[in-house]
Amino acid sequence: MQLSRIKCKVSYDGGNYGGFQLQDNVMSIQQRIEEALQGIVKVPTRIYASGRTDAGVHARGQVFHFDTSLRIPEERWPLALNAQLPDDIVILEATHVPSQFHARFDAIEKTYRYCLWNRRLPDVFTRKYAWHIPYSLDIGLMREATRSLIGEQDFTSFCAARAVVKNKIRHVYEIEIHEESPGQIWLTFRGNGFLYNMVRIMVGTLIQVGSGKVAVERVQEILEAKDRRLAGMTAPPEGLFLWNVKYEHS
Amino acid sequence: MQLSRIKCKVSYDGGNYGGFQLQDNVMSIQQRIEEALQGIVKVPTRIYASGRTDAGVHARGQVFHFDTSLRIPEERWPLALNAQLPDDIVILEATHVPSQFHARFDAIEKTYRYCLWNRRLPDVFTRKYAWHIPYSLDIGLMREATRSLIGEQDFTSFCAARAVVKNKIRHVYEIEIHEESPGQIWLTFRGNGFLYNMVRIMVGTLIQVGSGKVAVERVQEILEAKDRRLAGMTAPPEGLFLWNVKYEHS
Repeated sequence: MQLSRIKCKVSYDGGNYGGFQLQDNVMSIQQRIEEALQGIVKVPTRIYASGRTDAGVHARGQVFHFDTSLRIPEERWPLALNAQLPDDIVILEATHVPSQFHARFDAIEKTYRYCLWNRRLPDVFTRKYAWHIPYSLDIGLMREATRSLIGEQDFTSFCAARAVVKNKIRHVYEIEIHEESPGQIWLTFRGNGFLYNMVRIMVGTLIQVGSGKVAVERVQEILEAKDRRLAGMTAPPEGLFLWNVKYEHS
Repeated sequence: MQLSRIKCKVSYDGGNYGGFQLQDNVMSIQQRIEEALQGIVKVPTRIYASGRTDAGVHARGQVFHFDTSLRIPEERWPLALNAQLPDDIVILEATHVPSQFHARFDAIEKTYRYCLWNRRLPDVFTRKYAWHIPYSLDIGLMREATRSLIGEQDFTSFCAARAVVKNKIRHVYEIEIHEESPGQIWLTFRGNGFLYNMVRIMVGTLIQVGSGKVAVERVQEILEAKDRRLAGMTAPPEGLFLWNVKYEHS
């Protein structure tokens, strides 16, 4: 029985899930996808993602892989899987990859985007996909503050205290902030990887800078202190999107 | 007891409601707003909107008015009402208006927008706010077809057969179609008023033109026949937004 490895790109609305990863007592994206897969291949099949996303966090381009002996042309996989999936999970692409490919270990770059709704009144149409900040923000100051967060550095101050990972050094390549339409501000983070809650803590801290509660220069001090308690709050999950995962040959 | 008349602009996600207007056995936008009002003014208070919207239809700028003896500075009304409303209904503006103002009878122009998601695969983030058309559309042909729908005409063919209104003449000022971002197509309809389901039937018919099922010239014939059965299907409600209502002095 010859196994072939399939790489898939998936988008999901995380609002109804306890996160990407399988867990007890709460529905996960992984469980839904594995159930859909089993409906097609008829045997339990594990999937391996580029990384987990937290409860309530969305994805435009999460990547996972799985092995199967079932022969289906690659362009048929998205349609077959989507027919089994609920409408808040959509498989966008499937490709055959060499059996050495691994969605997690081969990822060389990730892009996350965070959406803010910055008007006094809330917006009904983005209420599940943005963080509502009702006071005014100085985007210029926020952009200045991002400079301290670029580069290969120890991000202990921007990592959930309960994280178990030892190596807290990550390389952030770029942080971009722009107002896409009036009131809608997107923060884009590109790096070789991100620690647990890292993007959301960076967003929470940048909001403190933008609202004048924390001085721009303070961000560098927070980073150097390697102490989670000094950074801002963890921004809520509904504004966060895993936007893209990059591999050597993609 | 001096009554003052308040005009409000409201946005709502219609997905969880049986429509704007009060009805038995199903929750309506009107009921939610009247309940919120009663929570503030402590007496049952009727609201009068520019018109009803159907089950599942959204609004960016629906307008209604009500009378009250309660004295609140106009800029406080949105905050007070929003505090009582669920998060899928947001009051955007409130202004004091003369007691002759009527949200329905004084409206001189309405704008509706309809959103299409035109890609083979569905999009999780617009699934509740757009109609997914998985086949390709010729937008040029659709634009040509809109020419027959502009002007002051009898729109019987584009009105739900069960509508009771006698006068089916309406003036459509403008229909615009543009691709806002890849795959996301917006159709904008501006006119002095629209019949029951009229925008959704125009959209259903334009989709038939865009997909090549109906010739451009056929739209003129459908209009002249004054027969609902000849026009296209009623497009689903989730793509439709009451965008704006215009008054003489606004």
